[in-house]
Amino acid sequence: RRGEMAKSTQLIDNEVFRAYATYAGIVLIKMMLMSLITAYFRITRKAFVNPEDTESFGKGENAKKYLRTDPDVERVRRGHLNDLENIVPFVGIGLLYALSGPELSTALLHFRIFTGARILHTFAYLIPLPQPGRGLSWAVGYSVTFSMAYKVLKTAWLL
Amino acid sequence: RRGEMAKSTQLIDNEVFRAYATYAGIVLIKMMLMSLITAYFRITRKAFVNPEDTESFGKGENAKKYLRTDPDVERVRRGHLNDLENIVPFVGIGLLYALSGPELSTALLHFRIFTGARILHTFAYLIPLPQPGRGLSWAVGYSVTFSMAYKVLKTAWLL
Amino acid sequence: RRGEMAKSTQLIDNEVFRAYATYAGIVLIKMMLMSLITAYFRITRKAFVNPEDTESFGKGENAKKYLRTDPDVERVRRGHLNDLENIVPFVGIGLLYALSGPELSTALLHFRIFTGARILHTFAYLIPLPQPGRGLSWAVGYSVTFSMAYKVLKTAWLL
Repeated sequence: RRGEMAKSTQLIDNEVFRAYATYAGIVLIKMMLMSLITAYFRITRKAFVNPEDTESFGKGENAKKYLRTDPDVERVRRGHLNDLENIVPFVGIGLLYALSGPELSTALLHFRIFTGARILHTFAYLIPLPQPGRGLSWAVGYSVTFSMAYKVLKTAWLL
Repeated sequence: RRGEMAKSTQLIDNEVFRAYATYAGIVLIKMMLMSLITAYFRITRKAFVNPEDTESFGKGENAKKYLRTDPDVERVRRGHLNDLENIVPFVGIGLLYALSGPELSTALLHFRIFTGARILHTFAYLIPLPQPGRGLSWAVGYSVTFSMAYKVLKTAWLL
Repeated sequence: RRGEMAKSTQLIDNEVFRAYATYAGIVLIKMMLMSLITAYFRITRKAFVNPEDTESFGKGENAKKYLRTDPDVERVRRGHLNDLENIVPFVGIGLLYALSGPELSTALLHFRIFTGARILHTFAYLIPLPQPGRGLSWAVGYSVTFSMAYKVLKTAWLL
């Protein structure tokens, strides 16, 4: 029992892996918050997509008028999808990167810049900030993930 | 060769990791099944989005009428996207959680509740069940992932 | 310090894990490239969705006409979403598979076929090739992931 626990905490004792777990946890929680923001806008804007979600507003035509798209809801949903497209590769490549033996300081630099860029991206999308605010924050996060992928492929390469 | 195999099976010998692998495998397969259900509805409802997919129905206007959206197809697609938004964070955070040294019984509780909630969520979405059926099953899975994320950040925290 | 580095590179020294890291890295980069292709088509087709993205084209009605959907942009976006639906399960299940102690040759066969199938799928979607080109390449990748999931569940099963 003890031996097993020790084995299971081996990775989490490694500083680079702890940093990865911290930042991957933060960006995944940030991504999950998009669901709550979508729900908030759906309820306050009264804009739903499933008929069963509008039944509390009454029956028939009365409820049907809330089956509509709303620009604010759609904006949050686009931000959420953009998170899936960018945070998922970060989490996958970042895990391999953390296991490829980088220096702690280099790894922290990658994780911190990515996390900062994605938080900025969310604000740029939701406020919204004028371009190129959103575009730049997207490009910074994208480049960090590419940089980590380069290190992973250089270290692991076995086709 | 033997030594390598032993190293590679180290994690999979840990009970918490085995439980994680089992439940992560199950929910990922459940998510993948949404593709088959979408294909089933596209074919039975004759509702496609790519022109090349309708060519077997004939040429020109005859095929064009099958380029349309269908409520059942769209419903499955929303369920699939909701899986991506919720199962992907579970798989990522769950891995880190399994490596953070939780008790086996606590870990199993998290994995089982999440998996049950997401299977319920799929049925609630596809049947569909009246609200708050779908909403509650979503909230339960969401809360389990947050609980695991809390344990990960508490154990790993290194900013 | 040295000891830590050694621990962190343990997994990456395993050949099956190195193969996994290589192919997971390749398909995740392939998936990320879909963002660049979407941006390319949005800019060349002048088809945007966020009002703030069209401000460089002028104010008012002049800019508004670029807020539209374009068939080529939508096609790339569908390919991107299909990647999320298929490459994400591969990355998650593939990691567990690589840790379940498969033979290197068997693992390489899985990783190579999946990667080849998804690259073919992207070309089949974007060109587009007549069906069943895209359907078959999708089914091959899907089956490979199921085959890996079977091995994972057989090895790890702990409900």
